[in-house]
Amino acid sequence: MEIVTLKKLAELLNVSQSTVSKALKDSHEIGHETKERIKALAEELNYRPNSSASSLRKRLSKTIGVVIPVITNSFYALAMNGIESIAEAKSYHVLIYLTYEAYKKEVDSVKHLQNGRVDGILLSLSQGTTDYNHLADLKNKDIPLVFFDRIYESINVPWVSVDNYNSGFMATEHLIQKGCKQISYLSYANHLSTTGGRLHGYLEALKKHNIPYDNMMIVECTNNNEENFEKIKKLLQSSNPPQGIFACIERLAIITYHVCKKIKMNIPESLKIISFSSLETASLLNPSLSTMTPDAFEIGKKAAEILFENIEKKNILGRMERITLPALLIERESTAK
Amino acid sequence: MEIVTLKKLAELLNVSQSTVSKALKDSHEIGHETKERIKALAEELNYRPNSSASSLRKRLSKTIGVVIPVITNSFYALAMNGIESIAEAKSYHVLIYLTYEAYKKEVDSVKHLQNGRVDGILLSLSQGTTDYNHLADLKNKDIPLVFFDRIYESINVPWVSVDNYNSGFMATEHLIQKGCKQISYLSYANHLSTTGGRLHGYLEALKKHNIPYDNMMIVECTNNNEENFEKIKKLLQSSNPPQGIFACIERLAIITYHVCKKIKMNIPESLKIISFSSLETASLLNPSLSTMTPDAFEIGKKAAEILFENIEKKNILGRMERITLPALLIERESTAK
Repeated sequence: MEIVTLKKLAELLNVSQSTVSKALKDSHEIGHETKERIKALAEELNYRPNSSASSLRKRLSKTIGVVIPVITNSFYALAMNGIESIAEAKSYHVLIYLTYEAYKKEVDSVKHLQNGRVDGILLSLSQGTTDYNHLADLKNKDIPLVFFDRIYESINVPWVSVDNYNSGFMATEHLIQKGCKQISYLSYANHLSTTGGRLHGYLEALKKHNIPYDNMMIVECTNNNEENFEKIKKLLQSSNPPQGIFACIERLAIITYHVCKKIKMNIPESLKIISFSSLETASLLNPSLSTMTPDAFEIGKKAAEILFENIEKKNILGRMERITLPALLIERESTAK
Repeated sequence: MEIVTLKKLAELLNVSQSTVSKALKDSHEIGHETKERIKALAEELNYRPNSSASSLRKRLSKTIGVVIPVITNSFYALAMNGIESIAEAKSYHVLIYLTYEAYKKEVDSVKHLQNGRVDGILLSLSQGTTDYNHLADLKNKDIPLVFFDRIYESINVPWVSVDNYNSGFMATEHLIQKGCKQISYLSYANHLSTTGGRLHGYLEALKKHNIPYDNMMIVECTNNNEENFEKIKKLLQSSNPPQGIFACIERLAIITYHVCKKIKMNIPESLKIISFSSLETASLLNPSLSTMTPDAFEIGKKAAEILFENIEKKNILGRMERITLPALLIERESTAK
């Protein structure tokens, strides 16, 4: 069988070798249609790059970088185990960078990881990030990137995340089924794919069950936990308190428990609560906490698998898959009737 | 004022410049007495190295490495915040390496961090580490190292840790004061400075209160949580169960809660429990968990402060301080009378 070269592809398509090369790297210099035509033929003929120099350089570091916003959230600790399960098998080092939810730290981390430090990057966006140019640079430098958990749809990067919309929908519907007429959503950074998706699911569930939207029921929480405590306390002590709360991240559920303890409000009798959470102690809390629980290990593992396929360029076009995994509704005492 | 050079020191001491240089780097090639004599004079004359090339190289990375055994333990998440508070102010990057308690991963991580990747290292020893040669290499390469939390006394490295002995003593005495006659210690890796110190404190508290030592009361736990669950269950269902448990790490307290739930044993009526822990949800558990809580943030912060002083060579001899901070006994429902 004839080996398909870059030259051969260029001849068959009647374009320059440079055009083929750029198209396969998804360069913005090449028009969309030309790119698609070149990619289609490369895939059809099973073209594999013969750039041993490039792949040698690329694999020299034997290191991947993982950029995450926090480690105080149990999701990331578990996702790291999934990432490690793959990196370990490949004998790769794993460098972890914490962005503490700050855009600047995310940009700095991504820059720091370039220049031969790593062969690829797994990243979960920080809360502060609303500009994505620092990630485009990676593409230009041919450093594979995979999003996990917090993703950004509008750039051409593969990702693995949980089904946030359905998680939000199910959590809210669960509270409705348990008799809650008025349900509050404790929000955090609605522009994020994760919490934004959960909010969307919450709103749709209300609509489906003909519960009118009340913007007083959406409590906008931040990274300041003292402020969050006061906001939630104010909500629960208002003249028109909710019967149910859906916390979009576990930190906010923990704060709600502290508020209830403080103001002596009984869960679930006076307030039902469900949280998106991977918290190890959820089943041991007083009362045990109902959760929407993602498969954090699997999300980390799958993201790492895709990253390594792209580092090893098993497919010249890269694996551009986007995977959404369901979260599990675990019913516990905090939402009992 | 005359600037003190290496040459000047050598002349005054009547030794070669190379001897002075090696002595100040604490080289094993120089005898103890000579070293002390050279160091004393260097300190007295406020000698500062004039190796701009070396310090340029050293500061080039603007990065420190943090090597920790796990992130599923809440102590490390909080200690990272303390480290970050200092690194942030210095505009330094922080790279985190997880060893997953494995000696080999610790050695690999430390090796990987050398060669210009970092200017200094903060390290908490992994459970599997019983040989320390990989750390001696750092000294030879002039990369400052500071231990935090899990330390090793017998090499010349500064550290910041919690007072493990007194923590163990206080936790055990607390259970005795609450009426426990038979107290079990859930142990983990007794060769570690942390858990080993806590065990020592436990034994001394028993002795002080004339409680005979019973080796059936020491349950040796591992990284296998299913096995730990069975061991603790067996202990609590034995013909001679303890009235109190001191868990040396929070993971073992959580497992004990799960066991008690499973076998329907009431805490604190039938079993009192206290744990060494920084668990955020300790006060929300059912029942709330009494803890010996270290100041994790402060431990991370102080360790980072010492590291940066040594990176910046504020004192040519380096800051060799060893700091022990107390843990706080927080009494909650799990040890109520």
